[in-house]
Amino acid sequence: MRLSVDAMGGDNAPESIIKGCEAALDKYNDLEIILTGNENEIKKFIQPSDRVQIIHTEVVIEGEDSPVRAVRRKKDSSMVLAVQQVKEGKADAAVSAGNTGALMTAGLLVLGRIKGIERPALSPMLPTLGGEGFLLLDVGANMDAKPEHLLQYAKMGDVYMRKVRKVDNPRIGLLNVGTEAGKGSELTKQVYGLLQDSSVNFVGNVEARDLLEGAADVVVCDGFSGNLVLKTIEGTAMSLFSLLKEELTSSFTNKLAAGVLRPSFKRVKNKMDYSEYGGAGLFGLRAPVIKAHGSSDERAFFSAIRQAKTMHEEKVVSTIEQEIQKTKSAEGE
Amino acid sequence: MRLSVDAMGGDNAPESIIKGCEAALDKYNDLEIILTGNENEIKKFIQPSDRVQIIHTEVVIEGEDSPVRAVRRKKDSSMVLAVQQVKEGKADAAVSAGNTGALMTAGLLVLGRIKGIERPALSPMLPTLGGEGFLLLDVGANMDAKPEHLLQYAKMGDVYMRKVRKVDNPRIGLLNVGTEAGKGSELTKQVYGLLQDSSVNFVGNVEARDLLEGAADVVVCDGFSGNLVLKTIEGTAMSLFSLLKEELTSSFTNKLAAGVLRPSFKRVKNKMDYSEYGGAGLFGLRAPVIKAHGSSDERAFFSAIRQAKTMHEEKVVSTIEQEIQKTKSAEGE
Repeated sequence: MRLSVDAMGGDNAPESIIKGCEAALDKYNDLEIILTGNENEIKKFIQPSDRVQIIHTEVVIEGEDSPVRAVRRKKDSSMVLAVQQVKEGKADAAVSAGNTGALMTAGLLVLGRIKGIERPALSPMLPTLGGEGFLLLDVGANMDAKPEHLLQYAKMGDVYMRKVRKVDNPRIGLLNVGTEAGKGSELTKQVYGLLQDSSVNFVGNVEARDLLEGAADVVVCDGFSGNLVLKTIEGTAMSLFSLLKEELTSSFTNKLAAGVLRPSFKRVKNKMDYSEYGGAGLFGLRAPVIKAHGSSDERAFFSAIRQAKTMHEEKVVSTIEQEIQKTKSAEGE
Repeated sequence: MRLSVDAMGGDNAPESIIKGCEAALDKYNDLEIILTGNENEIKKFIQPSDRVQIIHTEVVIEGEDSPVRAVRRKKDSSMVLAVQQVKEGKADAAVSAGNTGALMTAGLLVLGRIKGIERPALSPMLPTLGGEGFLLLDVGANMDAKPEHLLQYAKMGDVYMRKVRKVDNPRIGLLNVGTEAGKGSELTKQVYGLLQDSSVNFVGNVEARDLLEGAADVVVCDGFSGNLVLKTIEGTAMSLFSLLKEELTSSFTNKLAAGVLRPSFKRVKNKMDYSEYGGAGLFGLRAPVIKAHGSSDERAFFSAIRQAKTMHEEKVVSTIEQEIQKTKSAEGE
């Protein structure tokens, strides 16, 4: 498989990006990578290989760039070039750790949607206490969602969990403020009915409080709500760890005791770390596009590559397309 | 001041409720309490006093009761009777730890809104790392909010923070998916403009990730979003504590080390505990109505009483009314 990688995106680019690529090239013999970015910078870290191609550019989309404007004006940026490779059939999938909004825009404008998909969804896997993780979508591709969009998210999430995470009959939940039917906003009330009538394994409303307990394998919501939940989980975990750190280093005795417990703390932190699952997929586009976390280290970026590779090999995009067409036919369209 | 208290609401009723009342009666000489509920049960815990009156009823609204139906059919329930006392001028404020939806409904149907307030807001104080806390509203009184509702929430929150929390010039933030202006949903984009043009100290958009860091003193949002954020904070903290507990008791050495750190863990837990701030206020009603947490112990219920007392003494309701009237006059209505 051929993968295009934005070498300049993220806080630790290009070093961690390249190292993640090297790890993936070592592991997967059939993988070829096109790196887009500053050739001199890239060459500092890459081993020469006939499985690696570099497309040189000095233009980079920055984190603070306005997404739509950046994609339109910086057509020769490392990120847009990476997505362009997929559009032109030179790569099967693209990965970037850069500006999330810009990657969503590039995916939509350069690569385009699957026929029948109304809105793509940004879809990260989040951790659960049991370690299986759950897929949350959308977390911000589409701020003002309509009921039909959430139904499509459910179908895309269902395909992803079956094909990539190998979950047999994924439990699809609707993010809501209570578990009873009839709870929530006008949007969730309408989506509830659509999901009940659909072919997915709908397990009802899921409360934000129960997400990390693994209440469902796929949780659908509008992009505004999903973004809030994602960032609240991150913020709460970070705040708690920082409080703990402050307390546990507040005296010599505490430091000693905390030293004994360091492996335990590390295990807890690892359980809350979702980089193992890969990045956030942009579902609904014509090929896999993965947004790796901005702070990705080598291991996290490797996971994002593995995820793009599995999505390609398991034909996630064409399966989603078939599912959507099936529904359209059933509706007589 | 005269306070009516639903003696039968919450997981630990009536014992913790009564004990919280006793603590408040001890502390505040000018406080008189009307308890609504099962007289025999109440008398098991209460010291006879001429500052306490009991209104007997055997009807209770349960946690799983449907709010609107329960309030309409159980007019002689302990909760509705407690709110009724305020309506009839026999009490200045009401507190209940019972069914949240039912209390909101009783507040709205029995007591009614302040003139000019379009929707009441459910408004808890949440913890921050620095200990000051912040007010989040609305967390679920009103699921499909309009821009004007959020503007009113901002004004009500401003009055509350000045009067009750003694914050000089409260920083008002808008819950959003990014800090830049122009981010978010149609709703937040419109609210941003309204807040900019208003008299409150608007500090812009606030991301969910930064809430516990104390990014603002008052954070406004629609009730669906607020409920998600509230429950995500609770769920993430609970999940982390349960992971930690599991790890720290996994071996004898761990248990020893964790024993040394117990006071530190307790301090961290206390910092995340928001019962010290009182309950969630139902802002926008004609008198203070406080929803104490369902799991309130004596101390938490005492805090809720103190909060109702301060709201009454500081004339929060009439100040909100004046603020709202001021705006209406300025608009030429």
